[in-house]
Amino acid sequence: MQFIPIIRKKKQGLELEDQEIDFLVEAYTKGNIPDYQMSAFLMAVCLNGMSDRETARLTMAMAHSGDLLDLSSIPGIKVDKHSTGGIGDKTTLIVGPIVSSLGIRTAKMSGRGLGATGGTIDKLDSIPGFSSDLSDEEFLKNLKEVGFVDSGQTKNLAPADKKIYALRDVTGTVDSIPLIASSIMSKKIASGADAIVLDVKCGSGAFMQNPEDAKRLAKTMIEIGKNVGRKVTAIVTDMNEPLGNTVGNSLEVMEAVDFLKGKKEGRLYEVVKTLSCEMVRLGNDIEFRETSQEFNDMFSEISPYVDQAIDSGKALEQFRKFVLQQGGNPAFIDDYSLLPAAKYMREVRAQEEGYLSSCNAEMVGRSSMILGAGRESLTDQIDYGAGVRVNKHLGDYVNKGDLLATLYSNKEDRLQTAEELFLSAYELSPDKPALNPVVMGIYF
Amino acid sequence: MQFIPIIRKKKQGLELEDQEIDFLVEAYTKGNIPDYQMSAFLMAVCLNGMSDRETARLTMAMAHSGDLLDLSSIPGIKVDKHSTGGIGDKTTLIVGPIVSSLGIRTAKMSGRGLGATGGTIDKLDSIPGFSSDLSDEEFLKNLKEVGFVDSGQTKNLAPADKKIYALRDVTGTVDSIPLIASSIMSKKIASGADAIVLDVKCGSGAFMQNPEDAKRLAKTMIEIGKNVGRKVTAIVTDMNEPLGNTVGNSLEVMEAVDFLKGKKEGRLYEVVKTLSCEMVRLGNDIEFRETSQEFNDMFSEISPYVDQAIDSGKALEQFRKFVLQQGGNPAFIDDYSLLPAAKYMREVRAQEEGYLSSCNAEMVGRSSMILGAGRESLTDQIDYGAGVRVNKHLGDYVNKGDLLATLYSNKEDRLQTAEELFLSAYELSPDKPALNPVVMGIYF
Repeated sequence: MQFIPIIRKKKQGLELEDQEIDFLVEAYTKGNIPDYQMSAFLMAVCLNGMSDRETARLTMAMAHSGDLLDLSSIPGIKVDKHSTGGIGDKTTLIVGPIVSSLGIRTAKMSGRGLGATGGTIDKLDSIPGFSSDLSDEEFLKNLKEVGFVDSGQTKNLAPADKKIYALRDVTGTVDSIPLIASSIMSKKIASGADAIVLDVKCGSGAFMQNPEDAKRLAKTMIEIGKNVGRKVTAIVTDMNEPLGNTVGNSLEVMEAVDFLKGKKEGRLYEVVKTLSCEMVRLGNDIEFRETSQEFNDMFSEISPYVDQAIDSGKALEQFRKFVLQQGGNPAFIDDYSLLPAAKYMREVRAQEEGYLSSCNAEMVGRSSMILGAGRESLTDQIDYGAGVRVNKHLGDYVNKGDLLATLYSNKEDRLQTAEELFLSAYELSPDKPALNPVVMGIYF
Repeated sequence: MQFIPIIRKKKQGLELEDQEIDFLVEAYTKGNIPDYQMSAFLMAVCLNGMSDRETARLTMAMAHSGDLLDLSSIPGIKVDKHSTGGIGDKTTLIVGPIVSSLGIRTAKMSGRGLGATGGTIDKLDSIPGFSSDLSDEEFLKNLKEVGFVDSGQTKNLAPADKKIYALRDVTGTVDSIPLIASSIMSKKIASGADAIVLDVKCGSGAFMQNPEDAKRLAKTMIEIGKNVGRKVTAIVTDMNEPLGNTVGNSLEVMEAVDFLKGKKEGRLYEVVKTLSCEMVRLGNDIEFRETSQEFNDMFSEISPYVDQAIDSGKALEQFRKFVLQQGGNPAFIDDYSLLPAAKYMREVRAQEEGYLSSCNAEMVGRSSMILGAGRESLTDQIDYGAGVRVNKHLGDYVNKGDLLATLYSNKEDRLQTAEELFLSAYELSPDKPALNPVVMGIYF
């Protein structure tokens, strides 16, 4: 098979055959298609799109390009959860323990952070002794014994996606819903869970900046799931300010532990509750007709169990077991001084008065990255103690001089730039702004 | 300057700044932009287009990427002529001598053929002793002394275009009007003529398959000319069957000489007359208001000179001088047996009766290529004596057994495939078909 006619076909906006998609994924992974042809093809996909069938086929071809994790030896429905990436998003550290404490096996492979966006693996790696580098056998063992496991992706998980993603990153072809959806879903499918709850972030701190795109991405991933026999729910959540009060690795671990200790509040609580309920529903294979009334009834039935898991301390206990199982020292749960901390801190105060009316969450993420909490390029080292503690949220009224945030870093010379960036992220207005609900939509 | 933001800008359908276009051409030519980024950009241009300003800037950046030929030492308006490529198109060999015999300096750089399409340089190279490889000094000297020169492109003519074209060829990004227009015009501008007459071929044997695309390409190239201060006329001509009676190198040289000896007839005569008149008009700087009446008046005034140049033998004399000046032995003009000939020939006869109602001219070109007259890839050797002599044209009525064409080759085993291809190119119908005029439009 020749690749140039396939490029031309997509250029003309035509639909590719299954075998053409299989061919291009296999040939590119093997190095038989040069990068300069693949990037032309990817740009044609960005501009002419892909049908649901093409996207599903691309997903499966990428999922099958490497090892597939087989979870069938573990009884029950295995549930996975994935966020498309946001600022201050520590929900995995919270919902994993909650849901698994309710008896649902939660099998997750997470990524590292890049740019303004943090990664769950980096957060976990801030825990002394914690290992996110598990073999397939360890992954299965932990899932069986603890019920919740979170590991970095194994080397041979969807290698086609790795190679294609790296090329997209340097050719301006990241921004395409079929390509984003197939990249996420190929890894989810290869890592073996039966049911997947997707948290599609939407807003200034997310890849999807408007609700229409977020909904399209959600529906595309759901369609892929349907096409390949996995149950997928996508929850679109607002990412127009950091989620919760912290951005940065050990800072977010502390916030997650505080949450599991009972400090369940605000927008973070809304998101955790929704994700957890849906994971519990899928893990128990509870069917319902897709009407909002039925959904609300189902939600009202499950959410007390979620609250109970937290209030009873069972979820915290589960978190402790999870940390211990992956080699971490859970003593930090009772003594945060055992976590990495930053030498320098700076308080950021309001320079005028008014309602916090808008936030460029990506700039808050960049501010945190500059402090050392994130990577500009993949080879950068992370400063686990660095980050931002946010003291005010959208809709809050602030007076001049009020504490907006505290910045943490081990590099004193970064504080000034980070402060300027943080301040420029927010706008103040004399009128109380209308705010989005944090859960913007749920799609099945 | 960074290239990825420029790719993204074009992906979003935005217009690039002049300095962005200059940067990408220069950086790519110098090897500072990798092929995989350039091909993504080229695909974005294919799908999102370029404005007239962008196309003109790209053209000039490519023209200035190498040497510019300076023709200013030669008095008068220097005229160039270019065809976008067709089957059996030997007009340069005819109009060059005609126009230069009328005192217009005709400075032309031609290309070699690839695929179904022949190249003027290959045709000239079939003349014993003829050299198409001239230095800039020889080019200028011949233009001054003879008034007509035709040379292969010098190595450092628009190197950016060479490199970009090679990449387009292997990434499915050939088919884009701004890219085609800028590729052609960058070479025309670098080769220095003041006025350019473009023959935009349209039909089954041409790159532009429909009149709308041909007109768009014509207008795009005219706009480039306006933007950069060169006079450009584009004549759209029909390419739904071979032009004239021959396809192949020495066969076409013979047909051109026959024409200059007075055998001026059919569609080839129409095209030659129109191109010649327009070149004479531009070379004499004759202005006219762009109304069809004024154009027809102007045309009626100039065309007798064109006929006279042929009928008097002046144009043939000019062709003789031109051949001699470029090292060829003009004796072949009076004795065609001095030209390369093919050992084998085959007569192709009609297998049924009816009007020749349609022709896939590209397939006739492919048939000729298979016989040895063209190249499948750039490194193939040409068989100068090979080709097709066409005996019937669209609209002719044929009876079963009538001679349709004669095939010539030095490879006997190619005759069968070439015959099948030739026959499959034509359709017969019981009704006389309506035919396009050969000159479909003239744009200034």
